[in-house]
Amino acid sequence: MFKTVEWTKAGVVMIDQRVLPDKEVYRTYKDYKAVAGAIKDMVVRGAPAIGVAAAFGVAIGALKIKTKDAKAFRKELGIISSLLASTRPTAVNLFWGIERMRRVVDSNPGSTVAQLQKLLVDEAILIHQEDIAICRKIGSNGAGLLKDNSTALTHCNAGALATAGYGTALGVIRGAIEAGKKIQVFADETRPFLQGARLTAWELNKDGIDVTLITDNMAGWMMKKGLIHSVVVGADRIAANGDTANKIGTYSVAVLARENNIPFYVAAPLSTIDLKMKHGDLIPIEERASSEVTHIKGKRIAPEGIKVRNPAFDVTPAKFVTAIITEKGVVRAPYLKGLKGLFAAQPSSCSCL
Amino acid sequence: MFKTVEWTKAGVVMIDQRVLPDKEVYRTYKDYKAVAGAIKDMVVRGAPAIGVAAAFGVAIGALKIKTKDAKAFRKELGIISSLLASTRPTAVNLFWGIERMRRVVDSNPGSTVAQLQKLLVDEAILIHQEDIAICRKIGSNGAGLLKDNSTALTHCNAGALATAGYGTALGVIRGAIEAGKKIQVFADETRPFLQGARLTAWELNKDGIDVTLITDNMAGWMMKKGLIHSVVVGADRIAANGDTANKIGTYSVAVLARENNIPFYVAAPLSTIDLKMKHGDLIPIEERASSEVTHIKGKRIAPEGIKVRNPAFDVTPAKFVTAIITEKGVVRAPYLKGLKGLFAAQPSSCSCL
Repeated sequence: MFKTVEWTKAGVVMIDQRVLPDKEVYRTYKDYKAVAGAIKDMVVRGAPAIGVAAAFGVAIGALKIKTKDAKAFRKELGIISSLLASTRPTAVNLFWGIERMRRVVDSNPGSTVAQLQKLLVDEAILIHQEDIAICRKIGSNGAGLLKDNSTALTHCNAGALATAGYGTALGVIRGAIEAGKKIQVFADETRPFLQGARLTAWELNKDGIDVTLITDNMAGWMMKKGLIHSVVVGADRIAANGDTANKIGTYSVAVLARENNIPFYVAAPLSTIDLKMKHGDLIPIEERASSEVTHIKGKRIAPEGIKVRNPAFDVTPAKFVTAIITEKGVVRAPYLKGLKGLFAAQPSSCSCL
Repeated sequence: MFKTVEWTKAGVVMIDQRVLPDKEVYRTYKDYKAVAGAIKDMVVRGAPAIGVAAAFGVAIGALKIKTKDAKAFRKELGIISSLLASTRPTAVNLFWGIERMRRVVDSNPGSTVAQLQKLLVDEAILIHQEDIAICRKIGSNGAGLLKDNSTALTHCNAGALATAGYGTALGVIRGAIEAGKKIQVFADETRPFLQGARLTAWELNKDGIDVTLITDNMAGWMMKKGLIHSVVVGADRIAANGDTANKIGTYSVAVLARENNIPFYVAAPLSTIDLKMKHGDLIPIEERASSEVTHIKGKRIAPEGIKVRNPAFDVTPAKFVTAIITEKGVVRAPYLKGLKGLFAAQPSSCSCL
């Protein structure tokens, strides 16, 4: 099985998601700037995986700080964290991962630099390990929502490649299959970056899970024809009221699901829930380079000089979300109360608030 | 200005829409089998253009028939027509064009083969000329529906490249601009064949019309953000009740437009209206090769051996259609009555019924 992002002695190792499924290439990033670059360039993507990668970035940055002075160390760590935080704006897990690393330093005021460095590496590795466990729990919590002998549509890639392993949305699908259900998956190709065609199709195929690829604009018609029984997607940031930022196109899928009376599930860890965001309109939406739209695999597909919009995410209003599946349980409307309740039940894991 | 499809002494000349916008290549088809191949392979596409190309195909086929015996000529013409009719199933204009050519033969029972050949060529050229005039009329009829200083989203290409010239949906936009209005166009790229990115963006850019390219899954979000004020699309076949078959993804756009209270207009000539089809579920939907989804410009974008669905069209139920813009006027619900009325007013042009 492939590893999405991993801590090794040589550095932070990531599978290069830009070249999948053609090539399975692992790259080693030896300093925090290189890790930041990998996040920005989407070598690694997917909210939980970005959170893990950012934590690894902080850890590798911390190891390279040369000072023995704890105060100077903290200052340099702040610079490292700021750079990592500037890579991508929408997925809150990035900030959550960095914040969790900061808390290690804050809660160990008397430690030496060497001690802090060890604590930071341990924390980053723990975040990574926890993420896999969290995904498995999301999977088992959501497994009951998918019916036996049914189909599920997913958008983008919220799979093992978007997390430390197993996946969120694909974790739910894997959980249902592990529970003995027969599930057929429809994968939206997810333009412009083609996470569905390149990543979801690849990792499900590798797992022997039945997957059918469609273009994004086919999803509505497949629903209309009764071919899709549920929708499961991941999330990049969930506001306190349940509004969900996720890969561009998710909003459209949600509207089409409601029109066709199909349940629309969001699967995400608590680290994706941002209770400080009252509603989805406040979530910053990244706009990426126009070349992602005008070029595919380096080949131009549109006239030169054409104007392009390229928002990388959209926000699905909570009213379209049937349920949010987390590692702490399944939440349904009213989300304001339900999401808050998840954290109240587990104050220790709520380090981002 | 480019010519989509044209009758010349050398044969039927078409701009090869498969290689636009990279190359502006004109190909000459010298017999009906070659014309049929060009329709099937989408050298020419777009319902009205297919209708014209099919008529040209019948005409060039008729010219090549060697017999002097009128009965044998009719029989051979039947074989030619059948082959042309088998190229693509959804756009009714194909059958309409062929049927109109058949009527020329049927209504001239005493003519010699040479006379019939001349009549058929004349009819095909007339169909071509009429199509341009019809598009201009659709444009002026629809111009009033678009507001000054507004934006319009279009899906696929219902432009000059989809017709003999000027376009249906893009005809409405051109009509509004010619009427002095400022219109900004958003073009869905329209996977898998990328008619929006390759063709609509190209022909609007060429005309100096303000166009912004987006991926299909961005349209809903653009609507949600208030950036799209109306939607105008073409059609491949409109059933008697107003249900509209058009390029895959149109249904999704229509549902999203209604969700966001945006008018959704269909622009099409009477030759696209099929009163024999009571409703949209009866319209045959072409499923095309999976390679259109898995490859872009010859480059694979999905894992090998992946399952794919590739319906080329979908059907938008009439309830989502704000109005249908034709050369005979603008029709609103109830469509059953309104669409029939268009033909009643003009029995002479109703040769397809």
